[in-house]
Amino acid sequence: MGITEQAGESMLEGSSQLGADVQPIISNTCVVLNSDGSLNVVVDKQLEVSSMAPGSVLLQLVLGEVCGTDVHLQHGRLDTVPYPIIPGHVAVGRVYATAGSITDVEGSEIGQGDIVTYLDVIDTCNSCVTCLVDKQTTRCPRRRVLGITCNADPNSIQGLLGGWSSFVYLPPNTKIIRLPQTLPASVFMAGGCGLPTALHAVDRANIRLMDRVIVQGSGPVGLLAAILARLSGALQVIVVGAPAHRLKVVKEFGIDHTVSLEEFPDSGKRLAVVQELTSGHLGDVVIEATGRPEAVTEGMMLCRDGGTYIVVGQYTDNGDVALNPHHMINRKHLTVKGCWGSDFSHFYRGVQFMTKHASSFPWHLVVSEVFDLKDAQKALTAVERLEVFKALLKPM
Amino acid sequence: MGITEQAGESMLEGSSQLGADVQPIISNTCVVLNSDGSLNVVVDKQLEVSSMAPGSVLLQLVLGEVCGTDVHLQHGRLDTVPYPIIPGHVAVGRVYATAGSITDVEGSEIGQGDIVTYLDVIDTCNSCVTCLVDKQTTRCPRRRVLGITCNADPNSIQGLLGGWSSFVYLPPNTKIIRLPQTLPASVFMAGGCGLPTALHAVDRANIRLMDRVIVQGSGPVGLLAAILARLSGALQVIVVGAPAHRLKVVKEFGIDHTVSLEEFPDSGKRLAVVQELTSGHLGDVVIEATGRPEAVTEGMMLCRDGGTYIVVGQYTDNGDVALNPHHMINRKHLTVKGCWGSDFSHFYRGVQFMTKHASSFPWHLVVSEVFDLKDAQKALTAVERLEVFKALLKPM
Amino acid sequence: MGITEQAGESMLEGSSQLGADVQPIISNTCVVLNSDGSLNVVVDKQLEVSSMAPGSVLLQLVLGEVCGTDVHLQHGRLDTVPYPIIPGHVAVGRVYATAGSITDVEGSEIGQGDIVTYLDVIDTCNSCVTCLVDKQTTRCPRRRVLGITCNADPNSIQGLLGGWSSFVYLPPNTKIIRLPQTLPASVFMAGGCGLPTALHAVDRANIRLMDRVIVQGSGPVGLLAAILARLSGALQVIVVGAPAHRLKVVKEFGIDHTVSLEEFPDSGKRLAVVQELTSGHLGDVVIEATGRPEAVTEGMMLCRDGGTYIVVGQYTDNGDVALNPHHMINRKHLTVKGCWGSDFSHFYRGVQFMTKHASSFPWHLVVSEVFDLKDAQKALTAVERLEVFKALLKPM
Amino acid sequence: MGITEQAGESMLEGSSQLGADVQPIISNTCVVLNSDGSLNVVVDKQLEVSSMAPGSVLLQLVLGEVCGTDVHLQHGRLDTVPYPIIPGHVAVGRVYATAGSITDVEGSEIGQGDIVTYLDVIDTCNSCVTCLVDKQTTRCPRRRVLGITCNADPNSIQGLLGGWSSFVYLPPNTKIIRLPQTLPASVFMAGGCGLPTALHAVDRANIRLMDRVIVQGSGPVGLLAAILARLSGALQVIVVGAPAHRLKVVKEFGIDHTVSLEEFPDSGKRLAVVQELTSGHLGDVVIEATGRPEAVTEGMMLCRDGGTYIVVGQYTDNGDVALNPHHMINRKHLTVKGCWGSDFSHFYRGVQFMTKHASSFPWHLVVSEVFDLKDAQKALTAVERLEVFKALLKPM
Repeated sequence: MGITEQAGESMLEGSSQLGADVQPIISNTCVVLNSDGSLNVVVDKQLEVSSMAPGSVLLQLVLGEVCGTDVHLQHGRLDTVPYPIIPGHVAVGRVYATAGSITDVEGSEIGQGDIVTYLDVIDTCNSCVTCLVDKQTTRCPRRRVLGITCNADPNSIQGLLGGWSSFVYLPPNTKIIRLPQTLPASVFMAGGCGLPTALHAVDRANIRLMDRVIVQGSGPVGLLAAILARLSGALQVIVVGAPAHRLKVVKEFGIDHTVSLEEFPDSGKRLAVVQELTSGHLGDVVIEATGRPEAVTEGMMLCRDGGTYIVVGQYTDNGDVALNPHHMINRKHLTVKGCWGSDFSHFYRGVQFMTKHASSFPWHLVVSEVFDLKDAQKALTAVERLEVFKALLKPM
Repeated sequence: MGITEQAGESMLEGSSQLGADVQPIISNTCVVLNSDGSLNVVVDKQLEVSSMAPGSVLLQLVLGEVCGTDVHLQHGRLDTVPYPIIPGHVAVGRVYATAGSITDVEGSEIGQGDIVTYLDVIDTCNSCVTCLVDKQTTRCPRRRVLGITCNADPNSIQGLLGGWSSFVYLPPNTKIIRLPQTLPASVFMAGGCGLPTALHAVDRANIRLMDRVIVQGSGPVGLLAAILARLSGALQVIVVGAPAHRLKVVKEFGIDHTVSLEEFPDSGKRLAVVQELTSGHLGDVVIEATGRPEAVTEGMMLCRDGGTYIVVGQYTDNGDVALNPHHMINRKHLTVKGCWGSDFSHFYRGVQFMTKHASSFPWHLVVSEVFDLKDAQKALTAVERLEVFKALLKPM
Repeated sequence: MGITEQAGESMLEGSSQLGADVQPIISNTCVVLNSDGSLNVVVDKQLEVSSMAPGSVLLQLVLGEVCGTDVHLQHGRLDTVPYPIIPGHVAVGRVYATAGSITDVEGSEIGQGDIVTYLDVIDTCNSCVTCLVDKQTTRCPRRRVLGITCNADPNSIQGLLGGWSSFVYLPPNTKIIRLPQTLPASVFMAGGCGLPTALHAVDRANIRLMDRVIVQGSGPVGLLAAILARLSGALQVIVVGAPAHRLKVVKEFGIDHTVSLEEFPDSGKRLAVVQELTSGHLGDVVIEATGRPEAVTEGMMLCRDGGTYIVVGQYTDNGDVALNPHHMINRKHLTVKGCWGSDFSHFYRGVQFMTKHASSFPWHLVVSEVFDLKDAQKALTAVERLEVFKALLKPM
Repeated sequence: MGITEQAGESMLEGSSQLGADVQPIISNTCVVLNSDGSLNVVVDKQLEVSSMAPGSVLLQLVLGEVCGTDVHLQHGRLDTVPYPIIPGHVAVGRVYATAGSITDVEGSEIGQGDIVTYLDVIDTCNSCVTCLVDKQTTRCPRRRVLGITCNADPNSIQGLLGGWSSFVYLPPNTKIIRLPQTLPASVFMAGGCGLPTALHAVDRANIRLMDRVIVQGSGPVGLLAAILARLSGALQVIVVGAPAHRLKVVKEFGIDHTVSLEEFPDSGKRLAVVQELTSGHLGDVVIEATGRPEAVTEGMMLCRDGGTYIVVGQYTDNGDVALNPHHMINRKHLTVKGCWGSDFSHFYRGVQFMTKHASSFPWHLVVSEVFDLKDAQKALTAVERLEVFKALLKPM
């Protein structure tokens, strides 16, 4: 091997290194998203397993996810996406083949047949100023995300870089976690991509026992942030959101109060309702998980003086909002924290959380509908219309 | 004494408790600011010292301050100011009389003739949820500030509640600090009201050794924040401001770089200049001290990803600015902290700072002009026109 | 009133200011602890209510507490206790009389007949360097604690400064909280003095969702710290303690694991058990609540590298322990935090906590036995022998 | 390349990839330390450059360091050292050859002839729970340190894993920093290995403007911690140490006060001296940098109540000390932080610091003596006897 050649580009010399019972050729079906928003379903493509790079892992899909990010991807709202891609950034799979010995972070070997999930973020470099000095790994310029910022190729094993595929290719150094038997894939996927995001947001919030927490947004991230806030010992948790069927689910997770955007379309009225619910105290912590710019200024006003405001929902550019820095930041002595992405710690602790709480909550309410891979567009539409919290995909 | 009567309203029964050599009648000159912005100079008003409340202190003015807040007060830009007031929230005085035994926070007795300053903030209650549970004493609803939110009365000892007066009345429990002999009043006043504000801002910023710090604004708070950032071990400090004569002073305090708003009127160009000065890294910490809303969004863009932004300059409502929460907060993973007021710790450490650094810097450049009390309007105008960093007033 | 006279020493001029239905003379029974450890029960002492100071409150005892501190007090293990005292630092009472208008921190008036509790800490000065600059109010040199560091006098209303008394005198500025009707006094007292202590310790620990938490000690503070850790979102909580009947109660509060000092008398073996229970990870957070010095070095070894160790149980001097700073602190990169006392925020949030969780836990297991005031010695003995978690006292 | 073969073990196929003017054979002299404490000087060993692994770098030594750790290494006081080793964990070298394209963290290419230094810590894995979840990379179990925990071999290019060698081999992924021309190697080495250690300690201390800082120890780490504390805006810095000639140097670096162990051999007396120097306040922050266990308990008593104590000097096991947890930790409400190792951020910022302050301090006082490689034992003896702050080695 020459010194300029990178490990990830190498190929295995023989399938003998892939473990027992691995067929040399697989037949893969996947969904490809193009830059114009169109979807191609590529069916039963024959691919050679031996082209896996050393250190890589090949999964058979168990469940893939369709989330709001995928809706954004179809509409071209994210920067620098190298279409075509295979969407689906979080998934659960069964290990089909490993190219060499693969271990998880505890040093335990990952073997064929294991049911696993993986951190979608790859290639944070651990060798730039952002990673090593600023220690902001979620902002590493080399960071890539499977299913989002990885150019995909349905005609190559090494191109199966997203979850909407019956086989998923995990490049070398992808961080893999085995799901314990007590955590069914469908329950894990109820957390899905929203859980590390929500966990990161709640970490940033430093919730203290008996804090009043207000969450803006009743999508997956909002729901999960509310649950995590409750489990952090909040005195009360209030979710401001819509539509009604989502708020109903929020209540079934034991959240103290919901404030409906449909019932109270006026921002000032919502503030008044929150004031009443909190005996005038407002939120010690407010977490934004909406995607709407105008929620940000409303959220600042929902914080008590000296409170903490987390902005985690503004993942795409939806425009500007009028900010009054005197009333909203300076005079309120506010702490406002943006929260971008998540790292392995959030993902790992997310799996711990779902394992611990697999039976504590009605998770099935979140993952009510599972679509076939070929029906990915139906799943996308259901998510876009907020008909479901999240849709899942299964291989045909 | 009845139980409903408050100590602060009591009167001394005899001047015998005021210490030796106190004349029973003083002749006071002060400047009163009315709600229409007009100033009255009340000259040689005779007042009875015996009407001091137990625990109060009467000072003879040494130096009073004219700062940007006073300009705002004249224009009626602050909420809930109970005009008429005697402006001047920070001052140095000589103790003329004490109503009983008065001690400083170290337990040392304050005596006649001592040269002292005092925390302008009074009546933070230490008995509300804001003070005791949220621990945001600068937002205590009962908080009052001498020279700003205290209704004043030139016809009563107890009404001399501001620094633009030849005698200043400090109500019971006002926190007093004796100036050491090595700290001349004029040097202390170079810090003046801006110093605890800047110190609070720099505390909120948690500057780390070798951070790059950018300060927006070259007024007193901006200059002091830049000095404090430098003394906190910053790798480099950059001040973005105007006009040129202020930036010249900034440089004479050893600040690494200045970026002139006059030379670079375009925000994008200023960003480019800062990028170049910081080798593309931008600010680990950015501190806003301008009063202009549009500075806030510019400041967010001057922060590196994951950086810290302090908003300390938006003390009055100067309107809105268009905020893009995706680009400016969420995606940058920013921490934005408003900073309102200051408490005794900032004031106390400010005196320690000025004492330690009385000879380290050319403080005289900041307090170039001292006006007579009767020329308060001239002083205000000089401050408003940015002709001086700050103006001082002395008794006639 | 002369300026040297302090408000607290004044007397009311007439009972007319004490509200309706207040008898001018009360008959009080209390328990006095002398410096030699002897207890006097003073029965039916007639006292004049009119001697209350303005701003003070007189309670009729509902329930007083007997805790480990009282055992220490009887054995003279605390410094600078001004015997004789009336023990009992936390209590619940019914408001019998108020000397003037008294409000709680929300500004709501405290009235006759209200069922209240109060912060036992009085006289933190809010005017010394410790309070105002260092902001360590629990270390304020002027701090006094009702029932502990207040010299008491059974012959004066103003001397009833402890909870083992049928009437309890609260000096002016004592912080009072009304118990909501949904929080019975006996449930509140299950938290009692241990709750603010445990809450302060858990605050210092900064528990993060999915942390493994180990609590050393199964007394009231240990139990409450374990409950609070669980409610902070810990992945697992392990209590190391004894005797068996206490560990049984710990389990009934839903704590994941207990490690018995009786079953594993060897420290190394306990470490091995905790290692196994935590899959080799040890504690992200360890909280010491034992009072035994040797627990401190054991606790350090129970922390993972880079973990956090809270020392809250060493309230009296029980001697030294051999510390190896290389292995226990430096090499482990540990953070060790002492935790002394508590402030109003812990007390206030403690009431919020008990109100929220009044029905969530089997609190009656903690407060199984209520003694008559005159049986205080029996209660003390039961506490000293660890026969009960805590004993309560009721008026005869 | 087989998938089980690791990159670091590969060899270059030809010297053509090593850049121009690289001789195929070098002649190396190095010092080897054996497990019995003996030193071998291996002179003019001929080695083939082509055996460098892809991604590695070969330096010609400019200056190597002899520090206290090397003394410990000779006496066998560190655990798990894989003797024989080539000591010298921090060094400056001139790039002799690079095996492929090598970039620094800013992405700038490292080229032949560059004067560089490097992070001695290699192989922190970025893939274990300690690195990724606990985020304690200095405690990563796979961490190795050049010159300390790397088994060395003077007969192989890849075995030159320490600074006491005329050529130093940097394995792939070693983090390299180019020294700017304004930073002479001898000045950089005045910081040397102590600087990232001291910087990490000062980071852990969170020094606030106007804090009083006490440093225990006047060796390289103590001196540097004191300098960094001063540059962090401390009100005063006091160094407690010995011998006299070191304290003299401490004073020449502008440190406010020194307290001599020789003048005040009694711990209680030293406490009294520090009390007097700090007006009774003691240290807001105390930093231990001594290596003596008994310093740890003394240091706790030098902290004010609620202060912060950093333990950075206990790098080897020197036994136990008697700790009173009541008086020293709990009652003082202390925060004690161990500080182990340093990471790239401390090293990187250390270079920034030395660059910025190359002319601000009399660094030559720290690096007074430079020895030939063959005189390594003389250098070690001089360090052990505290005759010099640190000794340097240069190639013959």
